[in-house]
Amino acid sequence: MNILIRKAEEKDIATVHDLVVELAVYENAREAVITSPEEYLQDFKDGLFQVIVAEYEGEVIGMVLFYITYSTWKGKMMYLDDFVVREAHRRSGVGQLLYDALVKESQTQGARLLKWQVLDWNEPAIHFYKKNNAIIEKEWWNVKVMFC
Amino acid sequence: MNILIRKAEEKDIATVHDLVVELAVYENAREAVITSPEEYLQDFKDGLFQVIVAEYEGEVIGMVLFYITYSTWKGKMMYLDDFVVREAHRRSGVGQLLYDALVKESQTQGARLLKWQVLDWNEPAIHFYKKNNAIIEKEWWNVKVMFC
Repeated sequence: MNILIRKAEEKDIATVHDLVVELAVYENAREAVITSPEEYLQDFKDGLFQVIVAEYEGEVIGMVLFYITYSTWKGKMMYLDDFVVREAHRRSGVGQLLYDALVKESQTQGARLLKWQVLDWNEPAIHFYKKNNAIIEKEWWNVKVMFC
Repeated sequence: MNILIRKAEEKDIATVHDLVVELAVYENAREAVITSPEEYLQDFKDGLFQVIVAEYEGEVIGMVLFYITYSTWKGKMMYLDDFVVREAHRRSGVGQLLYDALVKESQTQGARLLKWQVLDWNEPAIHFYKKNNAIIEKEWWNVKVMFC
């Protein structure tokens, strides 16, 4: 497979939103996604997030969406918010290419660590992260307050 | 008690670092803090994080440290990274004042939600968040890769 890994451009952002929705469906949470492709485009222009995509035969088939954030313990940190490979293209190494590109990009941008979250029942994802020597922490709970 | 709630200035940042260390000690993780007060000052100047402090008799006795980040599902999001009230000043309402100020500031900055994490054994904190109608999610695990 001839996969091109590259930074996303504005023309990719509608597809990026589509991939986020695909993952939300997999996580049984489609209704939780209230963002729109139009908002994504504006937020991308505003620098709120960055994306690296995987392209195959001119089509975006996967992506990592991330941004620089902060750890009071470690300092500058990269946070991976969404990581999706289209169903039809899984188990073909696309995820590994995206993951490797993200690790490299995080280091280039001076991050001291890369962090993300995984659902406790998402076995394929957990297996992939363990294979990549990531550290899994089970003792933290998420807490949130919604304003809308 | 006459508590002043205000945004942190550069002169407060060394104390902010001190409070982060105090919380890390409480969480049995002092050795995990590799940042220094000098780095904090630079990162604060670079806009990597914001802080609201509680001042009592000219001294900073508590703080919330936070930054704007992104939720692919909800859009612009405020993330609370550290929330500390000095041991001697707990159970006096300082935490509630800081929390209320953070909620207000998050809304002012256009965040659609405020998110943070709590350790599963930190009963006083969990009680406080539940009292404030925050939603606790237990099904996500943290995953990380360290670069240093």
